[in-house]
Amino acid sequence: MNVKRYLPILQWLPHYQRDTLTRDLLAAVIVTIMLIPQSLAYAMLAGLPAEVGLYASVLPLVAYAIFGTSRTLAVGPVAVVSLMTAAALGNIATPGSAEYVGAALVLALLSGLILTLMGLARLGFLANFLSHPVISGFITASGLIIAAGQLRHLLGVEASGHNLVELLIGLGREVGNIHLATFLIGLGTLVFLYSTRRWLKGALLNLGAPAMVADLLTKAAPIVAVAVTTLVTWGFQLDQQGVAVVGSIPAGLPPISLPGFEVGLWQELLMAALLISIVGFVESVSVGQTLAAKRRQRIDPNQELIGLGSANLAAAFSGGMPVTGGFSRSVVNFDAGAQTPAAGAFTAVGIGVAALLLTPLIAYLPVATLAATIIIAVLSLVDLPIIVRTWRYSHSDFAAMFATIAVTLGNGVESGILAGVGLSLALHLYRTSRPHSAVIGRVPGSEHFRNVERYSVETVPFLCILRVDESLYFANARYLEDTVMEVVTRQPDVKHVVLACQAVNVIDASALESLETINHRLQDAGVTLHLAEVKGPVMDRLQTTAFCKELTGFVFLSTYSAWVALTQPSNALYPEQAICPQATSLPLSFESNVPNSPGLTVKGVTAEPVHTRSL
Amino acid sequence: MNVKRYLPILQWLPHYQRDTLTRDLLAAVIVTIMLIPQSLAYAMLAGLPAEVGLYASVLPLVAYAIFGTSRTLAVGPVAVVSLMTAAALGNIATPGSAEYVGAALVLALLSGLILTLMGLARLGFLANFLSHPVISGFITASGLIIAAGQLRHLLGVEASGHNLVELLIGLGREVGNIHLATFLIGLGTLVFLYSTRRWLKGALLNLGAPAMVADLLTKAAPIVAVAVTTLVTWGFQLDQQGVAVVGSIPAGLPPISLPGFEVGLWQELLMAALLISIVGFVESVSVGQTLAAKRRQRIDPNQELIGLGSANLAAAFSGGMPVTGGFSRSVVNFDAGAQTPAAGAFTAVGIGVAALLLTPLIAYLPVATLAATIIIAVLSLVDLPIIVRTWRYSHSDFAAMFATIAVTLGNGVESGILAGVGLSLALHLYRTSRPHSAVIGRVPGSEHFRNVERYSVETVPFLCILRVDESLYFANARYLEDTVMEVVTRQPDVKHVVLACQAVNVIDASALESLETINHRLQDAGVTLHLAEVKGPVMDRLQTTAFCKELTGFVFLSTYSAWVALTQPSNALYPEQAICPQATSLPLSFESNVPNSPGLTVKGVTAEPVHTRSL
Repeated sequence: MNVKRYLPILQWLPHYQRDTLTRDLLAAVIVTIMLIPQSLAYAMLAGLPAEVGLYASVLPLVAYAIFGTSRTLAVGPVAVVSLMTAAALGNIATPGSAEYVGAALVLALLSGLILTLMGLARLGFLANFLSHPVISGFITASGLIIAAGQLRHLLGVEASGHNLVELLIGLGREVGNIHLATFLIGLGTLVFLYSTRRWLKGALLNLGAPAMVADLLTKAAPIVAVAVTTLVTWGFQLDQQGVAVVGSIPAGLPPISLPGFEVGLWQELLMAALLISIVGFVESVSVGQTLAAKRRQRIDPNQELIGLGSANLAAAFSGGMPVTGGFSRSVVNFDAGAQTPAAGAFTAVGIGVAALLLTPLIAYLPVATLAATIIIAVLSLVDLPIIVRTWRYSHSDFAAMFATIAVTLGNGVESGILAGVGLSLALHLYRTSRPHSAVIGRVPGSEHFRNVERYSVETVPFLCILRVDESLYFANARYLEDTVMEVVTRQPDVKHVVLACQAVNVIDASALESLETINHRLQDAGVTLHLAEVKGPVMDRLQTTAFCKELTGFVFLSTYSAWVALTQPSNALYPEQAICPQATSLPLSFESNVPNSPGLTVKGVTAEPVHTRSL
Repeated sequence: MNVKRYLPILQWLPHYQRDTLTRDLLAAVIVTIMLIPQSLAYAMLAGLPAEVGLYASVLPLVAYAIFGTSRTLAVGPVAVVSLMTAAALGNIATPGSAEYVGAALVLALLSGLILTLMGLARLGFLANFLSHPVISGFITASGLIIAAGQLRHLLGVEASGHNLVELLIGLGREVGNIHLATFLIGLGTLVFLYSTRRWLKGALLNLGAPAMVADLLTKAAPIVAVAVTTLVTWGFQLDQQGVAVVGSIPAGLPPISLPGFEVGLWQELLMAALLISIVGFVESVSVGQTLAAKRRQRIDPNQELIGLGSANLAAAFSGGMPVTGGFSRSVVNFDAGAQTPAAGAFTAVGIGVAALLLTPLIAYLPVATLAATIIIAVLSLVDLPIIVRTWRYSHSDFAAMFATIAVTLGNGVESGILAGVGLSLALHLYRTSRPHSAVIGRVPGSEHFRNVERYSVETVPFLCILRVDESLYFANARYLEDTVMEVVTRQPDVKHVVLACQAVNVIDASALESLETINHRLQDAGVTLHLAEVKGPVMDRLQTTAFCKELTGFVFLSTYSAWVALTQPSNALYPEQAICPQATSLPLSFESNVPNSPGLTVKGVTAEPVHTRSL
């Protein structure tokens, strides 16, 4: 059982059938055609030699096929993770240098270790730190940065910058130096890719082509662009005239590599690896879950961590770079009919063949073509309408999203995502730090108690019953102290305060200290503190504490029993001296002594309720 | 009104009376006697010249008297903040150097600005980030570090270290070099202070001394120790024999100082200033609130931020160091009968006189005496039993406390407090990320619905009603997706899922996206999603969203109306095609069409409930 959990391949491989094989193979062909240009492009985006992208698309796919739980997720280099890789490595070494390539291996290794350990420790919930607005703001901002960064390749100029503004200013300065041939190739590719993506499929369908063929041709557009621009560059020897090309790439399967074990470098890259891991995991899991749900399948987020972790470890030991599950390729894989992770393994074989045989042809591939591929791919990530929708729905969510976008664009990917996470946590704490609470009174003639501000209910001047509608924990512990003291100050004749705890699922140590403080402060002021409706598990814990012994009042089973006991000073069971309540027994004895007919009113027996407020 | 809020002095000064004056003056005398040695000692602890401690005890006290809301809080240098000051400045300059003293002014200035701005922006809730276990763990660890750090002054040896282990190893190496005279002075002071603190008051009371006198004499013990050891050192010229003394201090009132405006230094100190501000604020507010409650007074936390902020600004411009409200001195001030913040202003006058007249006498004060004063003061902060109590009460709170103590002792104060805050947030998110939820069924013959695992209730195989007992926000949004999909997978015949939202106070943008995702996934699987019991404010927001239009099912006013509508396929009002529910109107029309007698069972009319589960 456990072996199957950690090796999901055992769940599908034994039942693998010829029919499944056919479908998986077809999906693999389509994904391979799409992945070749993308892997080259994303390696370039990460500042790495083009072949690294190919290497990262072989063994990692096999590793995920063994350890991953999604049947259709397409793993490999993706845009956002490549951008984060470039940002992390940019501080360490010069892009393209040997140290830089080595650092990419270390980053993949760290990312792999982090993901695997998180999976084994079942820490998938950490991804919850990233709220949807932060994620989508981050991806939109990343898309803009990536697109802006690629413009220089498209224009054939030199320009760089650490943020969007610097990048755009740098580009502006270089407008006079645009390299015409490069620009024409880039612009042509851009227009071609945009048109095919937008219109080709519909046009082919209109012409009566089968849906399958139309789809395949549309997906093949990038590789057609690669082939055509490479041929043109080679034929007209454009590389001699200054068109930047990918250059010669070693032909061969991914090499066996060993990431460096330098403590200083590991420390420098740790934070980046953590962020890359979490962002990659969130992206991957959300597409994986969406696709799995369409076929009523399920994926296991913690095993997904192990699957993605093993893919990154495989990348680290085979000359690769950080990888994760890509959105667009996974959707293509799903639509093409992939049935099992074997499709991923077949894709790996396809890329392996490409690395062996096609690399000599890639030498003349213009960098501008890859830049155009990247721009088209990432602009689909930019989602501006969601900014408006988020603003309309919730201003605090908008604030977190806006902070993420602004800091990412202005200061870089790492600080952007940290700013978003920090702000969304702060806003959440702010919201739960002031939980709804209400002074409640008795609905006349019943055992029900309601908010005095909303209902016409009975109250007694020496008794205040406060209901708190939230678990008590450190973020609202001090607010509770404040609220109780305020209520007591407002009601100067009060002798008894009852906290009605029906909505309290947890009392943590901070809230316990606050309850102790409240108890002591009320005692100093001559007021007795009682609790009512404490839930079983909460009471179990409270009983072990000093608070329970020091509590000046009682723990009542219900608000009504508190009402009856405290409004009947003549009741023999209610002693003047406060004693430690044996919480489960004492209130029970109260309960058994109070009249429990719902219609009965205690008015006649007790102190006359003085106000009956209404809204 | 607003002027009075920001200038609390206007609330008490106009009514100031002779009787109050007498009490405030007496309290001020006692606190002054206590504060003179403490201010010198805490300046030393912060690595600053002794006179800085005196300067920080004059104008800041006056500023707090004007802007603070606590009537009895005694502001000035305190142990933990001084330790944090030393930790922050240690990276910037050599202790005691002119840069170091200048950096302390900048730290006070930043801390003053942060506190004041937080107060004006009403950000007092940020202190909620610090849970009680983190605070008490931090203070215990700080106390141990401070005490260990002072041992070298007590022994007259050189030893330093960045954490407790290094400190103790350093001290161990120096055991052979102990300076006998210094050690005797230090040990003597330690024993004297400990004995007087422990036994003097009781002994005096037994001898028939009035309580007032006994108390005053006990409080005066540190200043007696200072006087006696200074005299002994001066008389025997012990400073010539290697006993470290405070040395000559300029006599005079606090100088006017201008903190440097160097951007780099500000950036370096910003984080430290933020932590010092928050820790100081939390400490100060908790003692202030406790004392205020004893007299049924209240303090305003946001105005307290302004009060403490102005005190730190005053320190920055009068040659001081970061200050806050001290625990022990405030209690003494309260017990001595201080009635208004004027007591603090009188204390400032006392310290001013001391700075003018007494400084020449302090030159022969042995450093070991101050070290003994500090050790006695901080050891009362070390609270080991609370560690055990926290472990017993809550393992997750213990984890946060333990992380704080371990990292503070092992790696320093700043990383210690950050580790504690980070871990307590993570554990809180972990807890709320898996809220309680239950599949509910109908209590036979009623309109009530209960957990199918706990009660014997009716269910229908094509209908699943899920109740979630928590607000929906980013931390549990994905868990909700998981839970719904799991429930649907377990119940293969399900056609309708109803989310019962009576416990949902908020749906944030992340949870909204998750609801959209759930809606789409269920749609792909041929299942309709409905909501029930959505609260008014939540519904108001949902109605503006695309989700409400895309929802495949309806929003029902109550779970019961959902049950009736969905188990009655013959009901004409229930269309086959899902349409956008006009949330407030449609369910109402349902409501008006379903039988609402509580006793009625729909069994006869509708599909037969198939299981009636019981626990």
